[in-house]
Amino acid sequence: MKKQYKISIIGAGNVATHLARTVLQQPQIELLQMYNRNVQKLNEFLSATEIIDDLSLLKPVDVLIIAIADDAIHSFSKKIPTIDFLIVHTSGSVSINDLQVDRKGVFYPFQSFSKAKKQIDFTDIPILIEAENQNDIELLSNLASILSKNVQYADSKQRQALHIGGVFVANFTNHLYLQAENILKDNNLSFDLLKPLIQEVAQKILTLSSKQAQTGPAIRGDKRIIDKHLKMLNAHQKEIYELLTKSIQQTKINTEK
Amino acid sequence: MKKQYKISIIGAGNVATHLARTVLQQPQIELLQMYNRNVQKLNEFLSATEIIDDLSLLKPVDVLIIAIADDAIHSFSKKIPTIDFLIVHTSGSVSINDLQVDRKGVFYPFQSFSKAKKQIDFTDIPILIEAENQNDIELLSNLASILSKNVQYADSKQRQALHIGGVFVANFTNHLYLQAENILKDNNLSFDLLKPLIQEVAQKILTLSSKQAQTGPAIRGDKRIIDKHLKMLNAHQKEIYELLTKSIQQTKINTEK
Repeated sequence: MKKQYKISIIGAGNVATHLARTVLQQPQIELLQMYNRNVQKLNEFLSATEIIDDLSLLKPVDVLIIAIADDAIHSFSKKIPTIDFLIVHTSGSVSINDLQVDRKGVFYPFQSFSKAKKQIDFTDIPILIEAENQNDIELLSNLASILSKNVQYADSKQRQALHIGGVFVANFTNHLYLQAENILKDNNLSFDLLKPLIQEVAQKILTLSSKQAQTGPAIRGDKRIIDKHLKMLNAHQKEIYELLTKSIQQTKINTEK
Repeated sequence: MKKQYKISIIGAGNVATHLARTVLQQPQIELLQMYNRNVQKLNEFLSATEIIDDLSLLKPVDVLIIAIADDAIHSFSKKIPTIDFLIVHTSGSVSINDLQVDRKGVFYPFQSFSKAKKQIDFTDIPILIEAENQNDIELLSNLASILSKNVQYADSKQRQALHIGGVFVANFTNHLYLQAENILKDNNLSFDLLKPLIQEVAQKILTLSSKQAQTGPAIRGDKRIIDKHLKMLNAHQKEIYELLTKSIQQTKINTEK
């Protein structure tokens, strides 16, 4: 199949790596170059694409994807030689306007990427795109649709809202796992005991709303159990338990109004 | 196959219903009777077992399972006619000593049961058991092992710790889903966008520790992004965001010490 799109990727972090791996499997996309200051971090791609550490060597592509740390995007984009192809970043919480280039856009794959994972299937990962004109929106939409069946336009504020949502359901949820692990460890119980419940909670939200799925002493208003629980917790765990219990009960009151 | 164990179940709530359904599928267990004050709530079991609303009709069994509301267990157990078979409750946060009977125990299936679910597979659900002598522990262990491949002994304090862990990973996590849903809704985004990430977070914890799996602005110490996020949140969301961010960062400091 003829390659329909040429792209290059800047960066060697989680997003850059996983994007490059998935792009290399698409017959419609050619990964022309990858750039990183430290080229050794791109060793796994040596035989698959051209690796460069000099921005003046960048060749023309349809889309140049900058997948680097959020706070480096602004200053890095100034260093790119004047070129007329579309340049996008991959960040949830950085405005499109942080890119100091002529043709700009955003290509935000909404997933938690960790290096530990060898291969990520992008098919179900939402990709949020943004650009300044209809042509570029279509270009990004077509490119993203090769990787994912869930491509949506989102402006910078919506993309940030989604990023915050991700912080709540991923970062904060994972931290609650850690809190629970500590409570179990203090009582000589294995974290493995919680794994079936964790799976069930994640499964349930696919078919029930979070309101329908809510169970436990807080939503039941079971003050006796809540007090028992608080007595077993240290000050730090207690603070989290009390705030989230209050928040669940507040939600209930608002719903019943 | 000959029935090895006779049991009866008290109650018509989620736990009683799901326990009865799964027990009825086991050739080794006979469900002799089910009791509820309101027998109509047990209609689905009419053809499968004897339904009673009078405790004096209780027949001898190996184990009588009381699956009723936590705060009703103590007073209900006093009403049971003096009998010499093992009586257990199914609660995470109620002590074995709340049962005012001679032979007592606990049979705690650790899962979040909701009525919406038709059938629950108990095979992977941990069942925590407790009793006062070795014979009763063995009886409960054998009975539980027919339903689940994960049966463990836990004293009342351990069982409560597990229940608290469940509150963190299930009730609180589900409430974070609700918070995220509200943030997305305020920005005209569908909660569906979060579902792949939610699945990924739950999957990840099967192979990575919560510490290894932690990502996001809090653990990176990305103050710029955190401040951006806080600006988009209302007072209530902000309180949760700030406390959990602080808690993630505190954990990091403790780990690095």
